[in-house]
Amino acid sequence: MNKLTNLQSFLKQQQLDAALITDPHNVFYLTGFNSDPKERLLAVMVFAEAEPFLICPAMEAPDAKAAGWTGEIAGHADTQDAMQVLYETAAKRDQQMERIAIEKVHMNVERYDAVNHYFQSPEIQSIDAQMNAMRVIKDEAELDILRHAASLADYAIEVAADVMQEGMTEIELMTEIENALKKRGITHMSFDTTVLTGPKAASPHGKTGQRKIERGDLVLMDLGVIYEGYCSDITRTLAFGEPSEQAKEVYDIVKRAEQAALDAVRPGITAAELDGIARKTIEDAGYGDYFTHRLGHGLGISVHEFPSIHGGNDMPLEAGMVFTIEPGIYVTDQVGVRIEDDLVVTEDGYEVLTKYPKELTIINR
Amino acid sequence: MNKLTNLQSFLKQQQLDAALITDPHNVFYLTGFNSDPKERLLAVMVFAEAEPFLICPAMEAPDAKAAGWTGEIAGHADTQDAMQVLYETAAKRDQQMERIAIEKVHMNVERYDAVNHYFQSPEIQSIDAQMNAMRVIKDEAELDILRHAASLADYAIEVAADVMQEGMTEIELMTEIENALKKRGITHMSFDTTVLTGPKAASPHGKTGQRKIERGDLVLMDLGVIYEGYCSDITRTLAFGEPSEQAKEVYDIVKRAEQAALDAVRPGITAAELDGIARKTIEDAGYGDYFTHRLGHGLGISVHEFPSIHGGNDMPLEAGMVFTIEPGIYVTDQVGVRIEDDLVVTEDGYEVLTKYPKELTIINR
Repeated sequence: MNKLTNLQSFLKQQQLDAALITDPHNVFYLTGFNSDPKERLLAVMVFAEAEPFLICPAMEAPDAKAAGWTGEIAGHADTQDAMQVLYETAAKRDQQMERIAIEKVHMNVERYDAVNHYFQSPEIQSIDAQMNAMRVIKDEAELDILRHAASLADYAIEVAADVMQEGMTEIELMTEIENALKKRGITHMSFDTTVLTGPKAASPHGKTGQRKIERGDLVLMDLGVIYEGYCSDITRTLAFGEPSEQAKEVYDIVKRAEQAALDAVRPGITAAELDGIARKTIEDAGYGDYFTHRLGHGLGISVHEFPSIHGGNDMPLEAGMVFTIEPGIYVTDQVGVRIEDDLVVTEDGYEVLTKYPKELTIINR
Repeated sequence: MNKLTNLQSFLKQQQLDAALITDPHNVFYLTGFNSDPKERLLAVMVFAEAEPFLICPAMEAPDAKAAGWTGEIAGHADTQDAMQVLYETAAKRDQQMERIAIEKVHMNVERYDAVNHYFQSPEIQSIDAQMNAMRVIKDEAELDILRHAASLADYAIEVAADVMQEGMTEIELMTEIENALKKRGITHMSFDTTVLTGPKAASPHGKTGQRKIERGDLVLMDLGVIYEGYCSDITRTLAFGEPSEQAKEVYDIVKRAEQAALDAVRPGITAAELDGIARKTIEDAGYGDYFTHRLGHGLGISVHEFPSIHGGNDMPLEAGMVFTIEPGIYVTDQVGVRIEDDLVVTEDGYEVLTKYPKELTIINR
């Protein structure tokens, strides 16, 4: 559990006595136990100078053990005050509790009131930035999982290219894709699968619906899977039948913008610089006003995590960071194209995780 | 918008100056706008003595209007501090801000810090109990939607009964059910569909997996749909081929327990009394140790909401409350049965919303 050890080192360095981690994604990251009991308390409490413990609904304790957690587990029943059980388990360790840390972007005010009530710590800090900083660099085991998650996203696009037909609705195509993934054991997508056809592809926040594929349509698909707790996220825009000249032009610009950003990825370049490179390619082609969102986002246990790849983020990229690059052009009611890959920054460049071809696929059947 | 007016009356009565509502389910309840922009701010701010306003990401403003919101909309861009935009929009109303209310079970500490920073209100109360109290009584328009959501859950069980076959996996059966619902326009289930077969049905927290249906299995299905923002939730346990004598005995006890609880539903009886009636039926039959969870839960915009039907809840039921009744018996590695209906308390009794038959369905094909 070197992730836990890293967090303990941080606590010592910052002279923090303990951190109470309650975001299920962070609990999974630190403990390997992947659960979200919603309103019921799940937490791992980490101490600068004592053994950590996990607290969860009593009925989940066997699952936590099965997931490899070998430390103490405090189970709580629905009839108990879970925050009191937490406090009593912590108190047994007889540690100073002058300075503790919580996830301020996750903990709700009700629980915060309980932390104040039980622990009476004079100082409660945010641990969010540190958790983000730890999670933003993926290790080799995480990368292997992310590679596999990405390969399943590739497979989803292959399935779509094989089955799409004139007259098929967006929801039908989505269903075919998700059914194929279920047969490979995928039970959860990383977000709602998006299939947008024809003019609907020009709406970056459009919803998969009942529109039927027509010959000459672009078909934009944005989807990803959750595999062993980690997310993938791919977008491909395919043509069903011969696309218009405008569609081909827009596709080519987006493809060049995506490749230009990819080619610039290496340790040291900033997120803002990457965003600028893709944006300039699109601006130079005269479509600057139609690229209306950030270039990309970090990817891991959460489908949107750090780093955020946008013009205001001057964070230099480092080896081990995983994120998407996904420029798009959306000309309302006319044409919409987005191309999205997942990649990891390497010591001397980058490795693309999603591998479905980016030459414009034109389906004629 | 009489729901908003009700909340305003409550604020005046309690001498609260304003309520900041940020839980997407509560925003939908009050405004009709159903959106969850995750880490981005969505809120409706309601004042005792001034017009309410909605704040959302700028790109969602047209959707809020389309959903019927006719009041002010403050849109915020990703480059802005959304809490500052909120504060400035509120400040324009020039209201006293001495006592304000927030949802303490929803708002995170980071946002709470911002509320304190901008509003500097001496008193910040919780509005959670009032929102729960309002939502727990459904009006006729809500009941019509819930009836339709329940009929789609019935349909899902009909589909399952039609298609289940020897050798079909749990995931395959789940896929057939969800595909049939997609064809009826359902894009989201109210929770992960559960299909548990044979001895797996005896695990109340088991997960839909690769086990194949065998002749003689009980097949337990727990599922629901989201229809126009409202949830349904049904459980039926069917037999594929002739079940064991023990399975038939357990099924009969659960059915009697469920019916006994249903028959007792009327305004004035408490949640605890209902739980006790079902539990006593099961205890008297000698299976008391195998009914390991509460009798039911409220249902509406959230799949788990108030009232909670358990032995510790002495809340008397009122007409308009909607909840599940779902007793179960789980004899580990042997037999598991649960039967769950959705119902509404009426002036003189109850109306069951889910109507799939509860006689043991034995499928022989």
